[in-house]
Order: sequence, then C-alpha cells, then structure tokens
Amino acid sequence: MTKPERVIVIGGDAAGMSAAAKAKRTNPELAITVYEKGRFVSYAACGIPYYLAGVVRELRALLVRTPEQFAQQGITVHLQHEVTALNLAAKEVTVVAREEGREFTAPYDKLVIATGATPICPPLEGLDAPNVFTLRHLEEAQALKDYLDRERPRRATLIGGGYLNLEMAEALRTRDLEVTVVEMQPQLLPSLDSEMAELVERELARQGVVVCTGEPVQGLGSDGTGRVRRVQTSSQEWETDLVLMGSGVQPNVALARAAGIELDTTGAIRTDRRMQTERLGVYAAGDCVSVHHLVSERRGYLPLGPTANKQGRVAGENLAGGEAFFRGVVGTSVVKVFDLEVARTGLNEREAKEANFTPVAAQITATDRASYYPGAVPLTVRLLADAATGRLLGGQIIGQHGAAKRIDVVAAALHGRMNVEQFGEFDLSYAPPYAPVWDPLLIAAQVLLREL
Amino acid sequence: MTKPERVIVIGGDAAGMSAAAKAKRTNPELAITVYEKGRFVSYAACGIPYYLAGVVRELRALLVRTPEQFAQQGITVHLQHEVTALNLAAKEVTVVAREEGREFTAPYDKLVIATGATPICPPLEGLDAPNVFTLRHLEEAQALKDYLDRERPRRATLIGGGYLNLEMAEALRTRDLEVTVVEMQPQLLPSLDSEMAELVERELARQGVVVCTGEPVQGLGSDGTGRVRRVQTSSQEWETDLVLMGSGVQPNVALARAAGIELDTTGAIRTDRRMQTERLGVYAAGDCVSVHHLVSERRGYLPLGPTANKQGRVAGENLAGGEAFFRGVVGTSVVKVFDLEVARTGLNEREAKEANFTPVAAQITATDRASYYPGAVPLTVRLLADAATGRLLGGQIIGQHGAAKRIDVVAAALHGRMNVEQFGEFDLSYAPPYAPVWDPLLIAAQVLLREL
Repeated sequence: MTKPERVIVIGGDAAGMSAAAKAKRTNPELAITVYEKGRFVSYAACGIPYYLAGVVRELRALLVRTPEQFAQQGITVHLQHEVTALNLAAKEVTVVAREEGREFTAPYDKLVIATGATPICPPLEGLDAPNVFTLRHLEEAQALKDYLDRERPRRATLIGGGYLNLEMAEALRTRDLEVTVVEMQPQLLPSLDSEMAELVERELARQGVVVCTGEPVQGLGSDGTGRVRRVQTSSQEWETDLVLMGSGVQPNVALARAAGIELDTTGAIRTDRRMQTERLGVYAAGDCVSVHHLVSERRGYLPLGPTANKQGRVAGENLAGGEAFFRGVVGTSVVKVFDLEVARTGLNEREAKEANFTPVAAQITATDRASYYPGAVPLTVRLLADAATGRLLGGQIIGQHGAAKRIDVVAAALHGRMNVEQFGEFDLSYAPPYAPVWDPLLIAAQVLLREL
Repeated sequence: MTKPERVIVIGGDAAGMSAAAKAKRTNPELAITVYEKGRFVSYAACGIPYYLAGVVRELRALLVRTPEQFAQQGITVHLQHEVTALNLAAKEVTVVAREEGREFTAPYDKLVIATGATPICPPLEGLDAPNVFTLRHLEEAQALKDYLDRERPRRATLIGGGYLNLEMAEALRTRDLEVTVVEMQPQLLPSLDSEMAELVERELARQGVVVCTGEPVQGLGSDGTGRVRRVQTSSQEWETDLVLMGSGVQPNVALARAAGIELDTTGAIRTDRRMQTERLGVYAAGDCVSVHHLVSERRGYLPLGPTANKQGRVAGENLAGGEAFFRGVVGTSVVKVFDLEVARTGLNEREAKEANFTPVAAQITATDRASYYPGAVPLTVRLLADAATGRLLGGQIIGQHGAAKRIDVVAAALHGRMNVEQFGEFDLSYAPPYAPVWDPLLIAAQVLLREL
C-alpha cells in the first residue's frame, strides 16, 4: 500500500473548501487538511448585509457546511489555525494553533493557497476604534450586530461606495440609522459608467441616504472614550456613531509573496488555467489570485464568490489528478441597492478604452414586461460595442425588477465573442408577465447598431 | 418628380405593421397601404388571457398603436378590408371593403403578406355553437368576455393543452369557473420533455384544474338552444357551459397558395433571410411563414410574437431599399401557468432525435436565489446536449420565479453554438437576492457534463 498523498489547503472559505471537496470527490485516497485561521469555514460572506438587516435571522444560516460535515467526507478541518510560513523547498507549512498556543510544521505533497483578500484601509488614525468596522468575516458581522443591538447608534458613516457598503446602507436604513456614504471617486460603483451610477445615486437619495462623492476621507475625530465621532472629508465633516470601512479589498498574498510565489501586476497570485502557480503542485484560487478577463484579454483582479468557487473546484480536480480549466471571467456582477437591481458585465467605457477598444454606447429605458401588464417597471439598459468591429464589449442594466438575470444574457454573448448584430437577433423569451415583445436588451441592441 | 413606390401590406398585426412602420422610416417616400380584415391593427393578442382574467382592465390597453397614429406617420390603414385575391402577374390585389360592401383592385410595386395564422379546429359538429370560442383576435376576446359577463358559465372545457389554453385555464379559474383541459397528446405542452410537462400538470392539479391527456375529443353534445353542453373524449364525457378551442394554429396561406407562392413542408410560406418569397418584391412575415431553426438547421413552424415583429421589421427595411436579415430562431418561449414560469428553448429530446442528434439530458432542482435569502424557491432546470459533440441543444426551466429570463442565457448559448463545457464556465451574476453562488444553470451544466 502506498502512502496517501497529502494535500494542505490554506484558507477555509469558498475557494479553499471547494478545492478540498472536489479533490476528495475526484480522488478519495487523498489525505486533505484545511487550515483556517478564523472560527468558521465555508460561509456565505455575501449574506452578511442581510443578516445585519435582519432579513436573515440567524448567523448560522450563512454557514454552508460545517467542519463536521467535511469530516464525514474525510476532510480534516482545523479552525483557528493560521499558516504563518510556507517553505516550498521543504514542502511544508508552519502553522500556529491560536487556541492551543502552539506552533508546528506540516508537510504536503500538494498545496492550495486560498488566503482570500483583506480590506483596503486608508492610512487614517482611529481605525482601531471600537465603533469602526470592516465586514469580511462572520466574526466581524457578529461584532457589528452586537454593537448595533447594544449601543443603538443613530448615525453611520460608510467609507467607500462599493457593493458591500451600498448593501450595508440598505441594511442600516432598515434599522433606522441615518446613513452617509463617502466615496473619494467622483461616482459610486466605479464599475458602472457614470450615466448608470447616477441612477443608483438617485435611488440612495430617494431612500434617505446622504451620498458624498469626490471627497477622500482626511481624518477621523474621536471622543474621550476612543470612539470615532467625526469623519472629515476634503470639504465637510460628518458627525457619526459608527464607521464602516468598505473601500474595497486587496489580495491577501503575504504568505505567497514571502515564499517567492509569482504575483502579477494586479498584486495577486498568477496561476495558469489549471489554477496552478508557477510552482508545480502549488495551486491558488479565490480572492488571492488574479483572473484572465475574456473581453480585455488582460489579467485583472475581480474577487467574487462565483469565481472563487469555480477556481477552487478546478484546482481541486487538477491536484487530484483530473484535468479541468478555468478560462476566465467576463466581469459580471449584480448588487441590490434598496429597490434596484444593479447589474453589469464586460467592460465599461473606461475599461474598454484601457483595453484599446473604441467604445460606443447606447442607453435605453423600456419596461421589463408588457407595458399593459400589472407591475411593469422601467429597466435601463446600456450596451457598449467596439466601433471598429461591432463586437459587444459590455452591458449594464438597472431597474426594480428583471435586471439581475438579464445581464447574464449579455455575459453569454461576451463569452461567445459576439457582435451587436448577432446579439440583436437573439430569440429571447416573451410572455406579457415577463417581457415586452421587444425585450429591452434587443431595443438597446437596435439603438446601438444605429450608432455604430 | 418620380411617382412614389406603392407598398401594400396584407394584414395589420405584429408582422404587417412592423413592416409598414420600418419601411416608412427607412424610406419616407414610400406610399404604404395596409389592408386589415378585422377591426383592429397592431394589437397585443398575447394579452388576451390577461384581459379575460381581469388583470388587464381595458381591451384598449392591448392596442399598441391606432390607425390614426399610423396615419400621422404617413401609413394608410384600411380596417375591415379583406384581400381576397392576389395577382402576381398584374401586381395587384383584390380587396373587399366589408362595411361598404364594395370590391376593388389595388396595384402595388412591393407587397408584404402578413396574413397570420388561423386556429386548427378538429372536424367536430357543433363548433359554430355560440358557447364555443377561439381566441386569436380582440373581437373574439370581447365576445368571450361578454359571454362570461352575461351568462356566468360555471364549467369550461378547454380543448388543447398548449400555451394559450393554459393561460386561459388560469384566467377562467380567476373567474371561479371549473376548468377541464383536454389534450389528445399524452402530455400537455408537447414542446417540453415529459419530465418537465409533469411539473406543469402538477401545478394545474394544485390549482383545481382537471387535466385529461391522451384523449382526443370525439364529439360535442348540444342542448335545445344549440349550445354545447357535453364534450366526449375516447373514454369520458365532460359536462360544460363553455368550450375553448386551443389546439394550435396553422399558417393562413390561402391567398398565397392560390397565387402560386411557394410553401414548404411546414405548410407555411418559405422566405429567404431577407423575408422575400421566391417572387421578387413579394415579402412575407409573421405567423404565415416558416422559420429557419438555428439548432436543428431545418425549417420549422413556430408562430410567435417576437419573431413576427423581427421578421416584419426585416421585410420593411429590405423592401424600402435597406439590407437586413432574419437568420432564424432557436425556439425560445415562456408561459405563465398559474404560479409557475415555464420556459424552454432549443430542441427537446424528441426534436433533437428528429434532427439526428443523440440527446443526453440532465435535470436538477436548485433554489433561484441564495437558500438563506427570504423567498427562495426551487427552480428545475433541464439541459440537453448532443452525446457525440457535447454541443448544447436546448433547455427547459420551470419554477415560481426566475425561469423566464434565465432561459435566455441558454438561448444565447444556442445562438453561439456553444458546447456544455463552455456553458458551464459562464460568468453569471451572483447576489444573494437573485441567485445562489452556483446558478442553477451552472449546476445543470455540471451534471450534464458528467453524463456526456
């Protein structure tokens, strides 16, 4: 009997646990150990705003699978075990078991780095105050929930106008807080073109959220108890009882970098399509790696849950002896901002120019279903194409209903490298309760064709 | 000054009016005349069930544009004018103006045949009874509405288990009628595979609709007033106060056939991709023409609103001197059956075999959004691929929410002639309120890949 191959997975969220599970299913002989520095594995971080809003009642509803469930599958999970060093030559990792207060080394034959991302925090004094929060982990969600329940803060200032903070703006308004969102860029959600971001800003205003764009935060002012009470931007000062840091994330690559693993210009770990780093047998997946963008044909950093899951699965299959590929993304995402579905895919105008396309855009508003059918709401669709070739480059859709999954039709067309003419001929579903006879996507394509 | 070119359009619904409007926009010099034998043009026939259910309150809400609006655009519309003959050699049509009781001939330079479809009625005695209805036109909708309001029938028998009758089953249940659907095929909705049609039958049962499949209607029994009171099938007899004929439609090609215009094996008019018949200057569009199916690569008869609109537009642009193409359909459709969205595209198993593919199917059920998010409902997805090539052939999706527009992602993949592996890599939108991290489409693709 040969000794089973030892697999170590560093990090127990989406990418790491997907890799572990898929590897075990592919080759049940593998001895798989996961080290997770936190207290949870395999959790739905994207559900945190809904837990804080009270829409999801129990934190444990966000746990997809427990360590016990993984154990039943033959995967060993160690919580509160932080990998602090990586020795590629010796093929071993150094692990600190926080609770037990001991450090040890563990050997591996195959390794998966799934160390995720960490929030980007501007260099400000006061970030360690007890009323300043980041929200990457369930522990942080619990801490904020406890703070909200215990201290009943009245005013919240959200620094950064990205997806998480807009979801949190809704969650905190649901709890009757006054909410201010401060963004240093001239618009919220920079992955949208400004004409579309404007619709989001209007919705926030309608919901009583104060939006302050184009103003970097310059300082935090504390009170005698060490709590932050003021947020200073270039021209204003906001009184606050609570600060949420949501200025995006960066790949957590300290371990990989120290071990000499190749990063790319995005600052994230570079892998091939099999999710292997340039070191044989060392895989990486999830928010710590860069991705190939199938439209720009460049590496990008787009840390999102579905990508992490797909990459983990591919890494797991390959390290277990299978053959799977992760070819890339087209940049699809969606966020609920109060009553709006805000969806995008592909390249926006700025990104298209950076990728040396000549973008032409068309933007239309049409009803999501037959205009005579009850509940019809306007849907704004923006499509972009390359003037030189007519190739579809991206799309953005915003409306109260029907945006989230319509964007996937655009995403499919991007995967197929289709042009606008082809897109405009799509045979899309029609019935009065679900779509008008000319789907808004097709109307947008017609208008865009005339612009080309 | 040259004399303006004369365009005659026969039939004033989706295809005909789209052709007229697009032709006029493309070349404002054209003299365009539309002859419509009914009392309405440009109406939303698909809205009829919702009008009868009372969901859409006014019949006029279903009028997209009026003859007066077309007149403002410079298009002459004659209602209650039936074209009774077509002389291709002389380039003229014979028109009967019903109200005025006169007949005349009108010359044309370009012609659009948009004569639509007529209901298929089995050869039964009693079809002309005052309580037997078909529902192609607004006039018929009004007649049924009046009958329902006036006579308050208690029991309705719907002959045929296609889209319209299932929508009508809901409409009539909304009005508290007892509803029986009789279908001679072994299942309802034969465009679905039986495993999916079963879900629809279960929903109908749940809603109190009696479904009788595999039984052709053999006779109608009338009372002394000439009303049909009994519907006899091979093994049963149904008491009824009202009969709806909904056994599908056939192309209305009497005029075209008599004039010697080529029909194909579907029985419908054959056109090229420019929507021109084999006669120069004679175009045809809408429910009277056959279509190229982009998956089976055969001609088919799939009379649907979006296709009629697209074809009309292409015909209009081309006859006005432009250059546009209608390349075909992939067979997408959706219907609301009470609380279910029932969507399909591409080929089902039977159709795939007929087109010489070797279909392999995978069917899964997963939630439409994150399982922890309130309102998550199960969505059943069935995907088919060709065993020999892995090419995606079709899909069917049924669920209370999220089926209608997800099918369009499958449709897009079919337009792109993609295989299941490519489909399974799609970068689809994710946020807890709208999708689980693995969209049901991707889960179905994974299962199907394993079957291949």
